[in-house]
Amino acid sequence: MVPSQRSTLKREVVALKRKRIVEAARRLFYEKGYEPTKLDDIAERLGVTKQFIYSYYKTKNELLSEIAEQCICDCLDAQARVLSGKLPIIEKLAKIVEDVTQVIIANQANTIIYLREEMNLEWQIAQKIREQRNEFDHRMMKLLRDGVRAGVLRVVDERVTARCIGGMLVWCALWYRDLGVLSPAAIATLITQNVMQMVAGGTGRIAKTNGRRA
Amino acid sequence: MVPSQRSTLKREVVALKRKRIVEAARRLFYEKGYEPTKLDDIAERLGVTKQFIYSYYKTKNELLSEIAEQCICDCLDAQARVLSGKLPIIEKLAKIVEDVTQVIIANQANTIIYLREEMNLEWQIAQKIREQRNEFDHRMMKLLRDGVRAGVLRVVDERVTARCIGGMLVWCALWYRDLGVLSPAAIATLITQNVMQMVAGGTGRIAKTNGRRA
Repeated sequence: MVPSQRSTLKREVVALKRKRIVEAARRLFYEKGYEPTKLDDIAERLGVTKQFIYSYYKTKNELLSEIAEQCICDCLDAQARVLSGKLPIIEKLAKIVEDVTQVIIANQANTIIYLREEMNLEWQIAQKIREQRNEFDHRMMKLLRDGVRAGVLRVVDERVTARCIGGMLVWCALWYRDLGVLSPAAIATLITQNVMQMVAGGTGRIAKTNGRRA
Repeated sequence: MVPSQRSTLKREVVALKRKRIVEAARRLFYEKGYEPTKLDDIAERLGVTKQFIYSYYKTKNELLSEIAEQCICDCLDAQARVLSGKLPIIEKLAKIVEDVTQVIIANQANTIIYLREEMNLEWQIAQKIREQRNEFDHRMMKLLRDGVRAGVLRVVDERVTARCIGGMLVWCALWYRDLGVLSPAAIATLITQNVMQMVAGGTGRIAKTNGRRA
Protein backbone atom coordinates (compact mmCIF):
# COMPACT_ATOMS: atom_id res chain seq x y z
CA MET A 1 0.00 0.00 0.00
CA VAL A 2 1.45 3.37 -0.95
CA PRO A 3 1.38 6.12 1.73
CA SER A 4 -1.43 8.18 0.10
CA GLN A 5 -3.67 5.11 -0.06
CA ARG A 6 -2.93 4.39 3.58
CA SER A 7 -3.94 7.91 4.66
CA THR A 8 -7.13 7.72 2.59
CA LEU A 9 -8.06 4.46 4.25
CA LYS A 10 -7.28 5.94 7.67
CA ARG A 11 -9.64 8.86 6.98
CA GLU A 12 -12.34 6.45 5.84
CA VAL A 13 -11.99 4.40 9.00
CA VAL A 14 -12.21 7.53 11.18
CA ALA A 15 -15.29 8.68 9.27
CA LEU A 16 -16.89 5.25 9.65
CA LYS A 17 -16.26 5.18 13.40
CA ARG A 18 -17.65 8.70 13.86
CA LYS A 19 -20.70 7.78 11.80
CA ARG A 20 -21.43 4.68 13.90
CA ILE A 21 -21.03 6.64 17.16
CA VAL A 22 -23.46 9.31 15.92
CA GLU A 23 -25.95 6.65 14.80
CA ALA A 24 -25.89 4.96 18.22
CA ALA A 25 -26.26 8.33 19.98
CA ARG A 26 -29.14 9.34 17.71
CA ARG A 27 -31.00 6.08 18.34
CA LEU A 28 -30.61 6.47 22.12
CA PHE A 29 -31.43 10.20 22.23
CA TYR A 30 -34.51 9.45 20.13
CA GLU A 31 -35.71 6.47 22.18
CA LYS A 32 -34.71 7.45 25.73
CA GLY A 33 -34.22 11.22 25.43
CA TYR A 34 -30.98 13.21 25.58
CA GLU A 35 -30.78 13.80 29.33
CA PRO A 36 -31.13 10.19 30.48
CA THR A 37 -28.67 8.85 27.88
CA LYS A 38 -25.13 8.44 29.21
CA LEU A 39 -21.97 8.06 27.11
CA ASP A 40 -21.76 4.61 28.75
CA ASP A 41 -25.07 3.66 27.10
CA ILE A 42 -23.73 4.72 23.70
CA ALA A 43 -20.52 2.74 24.26
CA GLU A 44 -22.54 -0.30 25.36
CA ARG A 45 -24.80 -0.10 22.31
CA LEU A 46 -21.71 -0.07 20.07
CA GLY A 47 -19.80 -2.67 22.09
CA VAL A 48 -16.89 -0.27 22.65
CA THR A 49 -15.38 1.51 25.65
CA LYS A 50 -16.30 5.02 26.73
CA GLN A 51 -12.64 5.90 26.10
CA PHE A 52 -13.11 4.93 22.45
CA ILE A 53 -15.95 7.44 22.13
CA TYR A 54 -13.87 10.14 23.86
CA SER A 55 -11.25 9.78 21.10
CA TYR A 56 -13.84 11.11 18.65
CA TYR A 57 -16.24 13.21 20.70
CA LYS A 58 -15.22 15.15 23.81
CA THR A 59 -18.74 15.37 25.26
CA LYS A 60 -22.27 14.07 24.83
CA ASN A 61 -23.22 17.63 23.90
CA GLU A 62 -20.89 17.54 20.89
CA LEU A 63 -22.86 14.54 19.63
CA LEU A 64 -26.13 16.40 20.17
CA SER A 65 -24.80 19.37 18.17
CA GLU A 66 -23.81 17.17 15.26
CA ILE A 67 -27.21 15.43 15.27
CA ALA A 68 -29.14 18.70 15.53
CA GLU A 69 -27.20 20.36 12.70
CA GLN A 70 -27.44 17.38 10.34
CA CYS A 71 -30.96 17.91 9.05
CA ILE A 72 -30.84 21.65 8.37
CA CYS A 73 -27.41 21.25 6.71
CA ASP A 74 -28.75 18.53 4.41
CA CYS A 75 -31.84 20.63 3.66
CA LEU A 76 -29.70 23.66 2.76
CA ASP A 77 -27.49 21.48 0.55
CA ALA A 78 -30.45 19.97 -1.28
CA GLN A 79 -31.96 23.45 -1.75
CA ALA A 80 -28.65 24.93 -2.98
CA ARG A 81 -28.12 22.11 -5.47
CA VAL A 82 -31.48 22.81 -7.12
CA LEU A 83 -31.11 26.61 -6.99
CA SER A 84 -27.74 26.46 -8.73
CA GLY A 85 -29.19 24.33 -11.52
CA LYS A 86 -30.85 25.39 -14.73
CA LEU A 87 -34.48 24.37 -14.19
CA PRO A 88 -37.27 26.92 -14.71
CA ILE A 89 -38.45 28.60 -11.48
CA ILE A 90 -41.57 26.52 -11.09
CA GLU A 91 -39.65 23.26 -11.48
CA LYS A 92 -36.96 24.45 -9.10
CA LEU A 93 -39.60 25.01 -6.45
CA ALA A 94 -41.17 21.60 -7.03
CA LYS A 95 -37.76 19.89 -6.95
CA ILE A 96 -36.73 21.65 -3.72
CA VAL A 97 -39.94 20.61 -1.97
CA GLU A 98 -39.62 17.04 -3.23
CA ASP A 99 -35.93 16.67 -2.32
CA VAL A 100 -36.21 18.40 1.06
CA THR A 101 -39.18 16.22 2.04
CA GLN A 102 -37.02 13.17 1.38
CA VAL A 103 -34.15 14.71 3.38
CA ILE A 104 -36.47 15.33 6.32
CA ILE A 105 -37.89 11.82 6.22
CA ALA A 106 -34.34 10.38 6.00
CA ASN A 107 -33.37 12.63 8.95
CA GLN A 108 -36.59 12.02 10.89
CA ALA A 109 -34.90 11.25 14.22
CA ASN A 110 -32.49 14.21 13.89
CA THR A 111 -35.41 16.56 13.28
CA ILE A 112 -37.37 15.33 16.29
CA ILE A 113 -34.27 15.44 18.51
CA TYR A 114 -33.58 19.03 17.42
CA LEU A 115 -37.16 20.12 18.17
CA ARG A 116 -37.01 18.46 21.60
CA GLU A 117 -33.50 19.38 22.67
CA GLU A 118 -32.86 22.86 21.27
CA MET A 119 -32.52 24.15 24.85
CA ASN A 120 -29.76 21.63 25.55
CA LEU A 121 -27.62 22.96 22.70
CA GLU A 122 -24.86 25.45 23.38
CA TRP A 123 -26.08 28.96 22.68
CA GLN A 124 -23.81 29.40 19.65
CA ILE A 125 -24.96 26.14 18.05
CA ALA A 126 -28.64 26.90 18.66
CA GLN A 127 -28.11 30.36 17.16
CA LYS A 128 -26.27 28.94 14.13
CA ILE A 129 -29.12 26.50 13.43
CA ARG A 130 -31.69 29.30 13.71
CA GLU A 131 -29.69 31.31 11.20
CA GLN A 132 -29.58 28.31 8.88
CA ARG A 133 -33.36 27.91 9.19
CA ASN A 134 -33.71 31.62 8.33
CA GLU A 135 -31.39 31.16 5.37
CA PHE A 136 -33.61 28.34 4.10
CA ASP A 137 -36.73 30.53 4.45
CA HIS A 138 -35.04 33.51 2.79
CA ARG A 139 -33.95 31.48 -0.23
CA MET A 140 -37.53 30.21 -0.56
CA MET A 141 -38.86 33.78 -0.30
CA LYS A 142 -36.51 34.89 -3.06
CA LEU A 143 -37.57 31.99 -5.31
CA LEU A 144 -41.26 32.78 -4.67
CA ARG A 145 -40.60 36.46 -5.44
CA ASP A 146 -38.79 35.56 -8.66
CA GLY A 147 -41.72 33.35 -9.63
CA VAL A 148 -44.22 36.12 -9.02
CA ARG A 149 -42.13 38.57 -11.08
CA ALA A 150 -41.88 36.04 -13.89
CA GLY A 151 -45.65 35.60 -13.76
CA VAL A 152 -45.48 31.87 -13.07
CA LEU A 153 -46.36 31.83 -9.35
CA ARG A 154 -49.20 33.45 -7.39
CA VAL A 155 -48.10 33.96 -3.83
CA VAL A 156 -50.31 35.22 -0.98
CA ASP A 157 -47.38 36.74 0.96
CA GLU A 158 -43.83 35.56 0.34
CA ARG A 159 -42.85 35.73 4.04
CA VAL A 160 -45.83 33.72 5.27
CA THR A 161 -46.00 31.41 2.24
CA ALA A 162 -42.31 30.45 2.63
CA ARG A 163 -42.98 29.53 6.26
CA CYS A 164 -46.16 27.65 5.36
CA ILE A 165 -44.02 25.54 3.01
CA GLY A 166 -41.45 25.11 5.80
CA GLY A 167 -44.19 23.89 8.16
CA MET A 168 -45.50 21.37 5.62
CA LEU A 169 -41.95 20.04 5.20
CA VAL A 170 -40.85 19.83 8.85
CA TRP A 171 -44.15 18.50 10.14
CA CYS A 172 -43.93 15.38 7.96
CA ALA A 173 -41.19 14.15 10.32
CA LEU A 174 -43.97 13.79 12.92
CA TRP A 175 -46.65 12.11 10.82
CA TYR A 176 -45.11 10.19 7.92
CA ARG A 177 -44.95 6.94 9.89
CA ASP A 178 -48.72 7.18 10.54
CA LEU A 179 -49.33 6.85 6.80
CA GLY A 180 -47.33 3.65 6.58
CA VAL A 181 -48.93 2.70 3.28
CA LEU A 182 -47.14 5.58 1.54
CA SER A 183 -43.42 5.42 0.70
CA PRO A 184 -41.22 8.45 1.43
CA ALA A 185 -41.10 9.08 -2.32
CA ALA A 186 -44.91 9.01 -2.56
CA ILE A 187 -45.23 11.39 0.39
CA ALA A 188 -42.65 13.73 -1.16
CA THR A 189 -44.64 13.79 -4.41
CA LEU A 190 -47.94 14.46 -2.63
CA ILE A 191 -46.51 17.26 -0.49
CA THR A 192 -44.98 18.79 -3.63
CA GLN A 193 -48.35 18.67 -5.37
CA ASN A 194 -49.94 20.44 -2.39
CA VAL A 195 -47.31 23.18 -2.46
CA MET A 196 -47.67 23.61 -6.22
CA GLN A 197 -51.45 23.94 -5.89
CA MET A 198 -50.83 26.58 -3.22
CA VAL A 199 -48.48 28.74 -5.28
CA ALA A 200 -48.90 27.70 -8.90
CA GLY A 201 -52.61 26.86 -8.96
CA GLY A 202 -53.87 25.75 -12.34
CA THR A 203 -50.68 27.01 -13.98
CA GLY A 204 -48.23 24.67 -12.20
CA ARG A 205 -46.56 21.93 -14.19
CA ILE A 206 -47.07 19.40 -11.41
CA ALA A 207 -50.54 20.54 -10.53
CA LYS A 208 -51.45 20.26 -14.21
CA THR A 209 -49.99 16.83 -14.85
CA ASN A 210 -50.56 15.03 -11.56
CA GLY A 211 -52.86 17.00 -9.26
CA ARG A 212 -56.34 15.56 -8.87
CA ARG A 213 -59.21 17.96 -9.28
CA ALA A 214 -62.61 17.89 -7.64
CA MET B 1 -74.23 36.52 50.62
CA VAL B 2 -76.51 33.53 50.07
CA PRO B 3 -74.89 30.05 50.13
CA SER B 4 -75.03 29.46 46.35
CA GLN B 5 -73.26 32.77 45.69
CA ARG B 6 -70.62 31.81 48.22
CA SER B 7 -69.95 28.46 46.54
CA THR B 8 -69.77 30.13 43.11
CA LEU B 9 -67.22 32.61 44.42
CA LYS B 10 -65.24 29.77 46.00
CA ARG B 11 -65.10 27.94 42.68
CA GLU B 12 -64.00 31.12 40.94
CA VAL B 13 -61.21 31.63 43.46
CA VAL B 14 -60.00 28.04 43.04
CA ALA B 15 -60.07 28.42 39.25
CA LEU B 16 -58.13 31.69 39.47
CA LYS B 17 -55.46 30.15 41.73
CA ARG B 18 -55.06 27.11 39.43
CA LYS B 19 -54.81 29.41 36.41
CA ARG B 20 -52.07 31.51 38.01
CA ILE B 21 -50.10 28.39 39.02
CA VAL B 22 -50.29 27.02 35.47
CA GLU B 23 -49.22 30.39 34.02
CA ALA B 24 -46.17 30.53 36.27
CA ALA B 25 -45.26 26.91 35.47
CA ARG B 26 -45.69 27.53 31.72
CA ARG B 27 -43.45 30.59 31.81
CA LEU B 28 -40.72 28.69 33.67
CA PHE B 29 -40.98 25.47 31.61
CA TYR B 30 -40.77 27.64 28.49
CA GLU B 31 -37.82 29.75 29.64
CA LYS B 32 -35.76 27.26 31.67
CA GLY B 33 -37.09 23.91 30.45
CA TYR B 34 -39.21 21.37 32.31
CA GLU B 35 -36.44 19.30 33.95
CA PRO B 36 -34.53 22.18 35.61
CA THR B 37 -37.72 23.85 36.92
CA LYS B 38 -38.54 22.96 40.52
CA LEU B 39 -41.91 23.43 42.23
CA ASP B 40 -39.98 25.83 44.50
CA ASP B 41 -39.23 28.03 41.48
CA ILE B 42 -42.93 28.12 40.58
CA ALA B 43 -43.84 28.99 44.19
CA GLU B 44 -41.20 31.72 44.27
CA ARG B 45 -42.40 33.23 40.99
CA LEU B 46 -45.94 33.39 42.43
CA GLY B 47 -44.86 34.53 45.90
CA VAL B 48 -46.55 31.52 47.56
CA THR B 49 -45.36 28.42 49.43
CA LYS B 50 -44.75 25.07 47.79
CA GLN B 51 -47.49 23.75 50.09
CA PHE B 52 -49.94 26.15 48.43
CA ILE B 53 -49.13 24.63 45.03
CA TYR B 54 -49.51 21.09 46.42
CA SER B 55 -53.10 21.94 47.40
CA TYR B 56 -53.90 22.28 43.69
CA TYR B 57 -51.36 20.10 41.86
CA LYS B 58 -49.87 16.93 43.34
CA THR B 59 -46.78 16.92 41.10
CA LYS B 60 -44.87 19.02 38.58
CA ASN B 61 -45.85 16.41 36.01
CA GLU B 62 -49.54 17.16 36.55
CA LEU B 63 -48.78 20.76 35.58
CA LEU B 64 -46.93 19.59 32.47
CA SER B 65 -49.92 17.43 31.46
CA GLU B 66 -52.33 20.33 31.79
CA ILE B 67 -50.03 22.61 29.76
CA ALA B 68 -49.45 20.00 27.04
CA GLU B 69 -53.15 19.22 26.68
CA GLN B 70 -54.27 22.85 26.58
CA CYS B 71 -53.45 23.64 22.97
CA ILE B 72 -54.87 20.54 21.28
CA CYS B 73 -58.03 20.82 23.43
CA ASP B 74 -58.53 24.44 22.39
CA CYS B 75 -57.86 23.52 18.74
CA LEU B 76 -60.43 20.71 18.85
CA ASP B 77 -62.96 23.04 20.49
CA ALA B 78 -62.43 25.75 17.86
CA GLN B 79 -62.73 23.16 15.08
CA ALA B 80 -65.87 21.59 16.59
CA ARG B 81 -67.56 24.98 16.99
CA VAL B 82 -67.14 25.74 13.29
CA LEU B 83 -68.06 22.21 12.14
CA SER B 84 -71.32 22.29 14.12
CA GLY B 85 -72.29 25.61 12.53
CA LYS B 86 -74.16 26.29 9.32
CA LEU B 87 -71.46 27.77 7.07
CA PRO B 88 -70.87 26.31 3.59
CA ILE B 89 -67.98 23.79 3.46
CA ILE B 90 -65.47 26.19 1.97
CA GLU B 91 -66.15 28.84 4.61
CA LYS B 92 -66.02 26.23 7.36
CA LEU B 93 -62.54 25.26 6.24
CA ALA B 94 -61.39 28.88 6.06
CA LYS B 95 -62.86 29.65 9.49
CA ILE B 96 -61.24 26.58 11.09
CA VAL B 97 -57.81 27.51 9.72
CA GLU B 98 -58.24 31.12 10.80
CA ASP B 99 -59.49 30.30 14.32
CA VAL B 100 -57.00 27.49 14.95
CA THR B 101 -54.08 29.69 13.88
CA GLN B 102 -55.17 32.21 16.49
CA VAL B 103 -55.52 29.44 19.10
CA ILE B 104 -51.98 28.22 18.33
CA ILE B 105 -50.52 31.71 18.53
CA ALA B 106 -52.35 32.31 21.82
CA ASN B 107 -51.03 28.94 23.08
CA GLN B 108 -47.54 29.40 21.63
CA ALA B 109 -45.66 28.43 24.79
CA ASN B 110 -47.92 25.40 25.40
CA THR B 111 -47.28 24.16 21.87
CA ILE B 112 -43.50 24.51 22.16
CA ILE B 113 -43.50 22.86 25.59
CA TYR B 114 -45.53 19.93 24.25
CA LEU B 115 -43.15 19.44 21.30
CA ARG B 116 -40.14 19.53 23.62
CA GLU B 117 -41.46 17.53 26.54
CA GLU B 118 -43.68 14.83 25.07
CA MET B 119 -41.28 12.20 26.45
CA ASN B 120 -41.73 13.58 29.98
CA LEU B 121 -45.49 13.05 29.87
CA GLU B 122 -47.03 9.97 31.40
CA TRP B 123 -47.67 7.35 28.74
CA GLN B 124 -51.46 7.67 29.00
CA ILE B 125 -51.39 11.45 28.64
CA ALA B 126 -49.01 11.33 25.65
CA GLN B 127 -51.26 8.71 24.05
CA LYS B 128 -54.41 10.78 24.70
CA ILE B 129 -52.84 13.85 23.05
CA ARG B 130 -51.77 11.78 20.04
CA GLU B 131 -55.34 10.55 19.70
CA GLN B 132 -56.61 14.13 19.92
CA ARG B 133 -54.16 15.17 17.18
CA ASN B 134 -55.45 12.27 15.05
CA GLU B 135 -59.01 13.34 15.73
CA PHE B 136 -58.18 16.85 14.51
CA ASP B 137 -56.63 15.43 11.30
CA HIS B 138 -59.55 13.06 10.73
CA ARG B 139 -62.13 15.81 11.04
CA MET B 140 -60.11 17.85 8.52
CA MET B 141 -59.93 14.86 6.17
CA LYS B 142 -63.70 14.45 6.37
CA LEU B 143 -64.28 18.14 5.62
CA LEU B 144 -61.88 17.98 2.66
CA ARG B 145 -63.66 14.84 1.39
CA ASP B 146 -67.04 16.54 1.74
CA GLY B 147 -65.70 19.53 -0.18
CA VAL B 148 -64.40 17.34 -3.00
CA ARG B 149 -67.76 15.51 -3.21
CA ALA B 150 -69.61 18.82 -3.30
CA GLY B 151 -67.29 19.98 -6.09
CA VAL B 152 -66.01 23.02 -4.17
CA LEU B 153 -62.54 21.79 -3.17
CA ARG B 154 -59.74 20.18 -5.19
CA VAL B 155 -57.61 18.08 -2.89
CA VAL B 156 -54.37 16.32 -3.85
CA ASP B 157 -54.79 13.57 -1.23
CA GLU B 158 -57.02 14.09 1.78
CA ARG B 159 -54.65 12.26 4.18
CA VAL B 160 -51.56 14.22 3.16
CA THR B 161 -53.38 17.52 2.55
CA ALA B 162 -54.92 17.42 6.05
CA ARG B 163 -51.44 16.96 7.52
CA CYS B 164 -49.99 19.70 5.32
CA ILE B 165 -52.61 22.03 6.78
CA GLY B 166 -51.72 20.76 10.27
CA GLY B 167 -48.04 21.52 9.64
CA MET B 168 -48.80 25.05 8.43
CA LEU B 169 -50.83 25.63 11.59
CA VAL B 170 -48.49 24.15 14.22
CA TRP B 171 -45.31 25.55 12.68
CA CYS B 172 -46.51 29.15 13.09
CA ALA B 173 -45.90 28.74 16.85
CA LEU B 174 -42.20 28.62 15.96
CA TRP B 175 -42.01 31.54 13.51
CA TYR B 176 -44.76 34.06 14.17
CA ARG B 177 -42.59 36.18 16.46
CA ASP B 178 -39.99 36.51 13.66
CA LEU B 179 -42.57 38.40 11.61
CA GLY B 180 -43.18 40.92 14.35
CA VAL B 181 -44.73 43.41 11.96
CA LEU B 182 -47.73 41.13 11.46
CA SER B 183 -50.45 40.80 14.10
CA PRO B 184 -51.75 37.33 15.02
CA ALA B 185 -54.97 38.21 13.17
CA ALA B 186 -53.01 39.17 10.04
CA ILE B 187 -50.97 35.96 10.19
CA ALA B 188 -54.17 33.94 10.62
CA THR B 189 -55.66 35.58 7.53
CA LEU B 190 -52.53 35.00 5.43
CA ILE B 191 -52.24 31.35 6.45
CA THR B 192 -55.92 30.89 5.65
CA GLN B 193 -55.40 32.40 2.20
CA ASN B 194 -52.51 30.00 1.59
CA VAL B 195 -54.64 27.01 2.59
CA MET B 196 -57.52 28.20 0.42
CA GLN B 197 -55.23 28.58 -2.57
CA MET B 198 -54.02 25.04 -1.90
CA VAL B 199 -57.45 23.41 -1.80
CA ALA B 200 -59.88 25.86 -3.37
CA GLY B 201 -57.68 27.43 -6.04
CA GLY B 202 -59.44 30.09 -8.06
CA THR B 203 -62.78 28.92 -6.72
CA GLY B 204 -62.27 29.78 -3.03
CA ARG B 205 -64.21 32.64 -1.53
CA ILE B 206 -61.17 33.93 0.34
CA ALA B 207 -58.75 33.32 -2.50
CA LYS B 208 -61.15 35.22 -4.75
CA THR B 209 -61.75 38.20 -2.52
CA ASN B 210 -58.38 38.65 -0.76
CA GLY B 211 -55.71 36.49 -2.38
CA ARG B 212 -53.11 38.35 -4.39
CA ARG B 213 -52.32 37.03 -7.82
CA ALA B 214 -49.06 37.17 -9.72
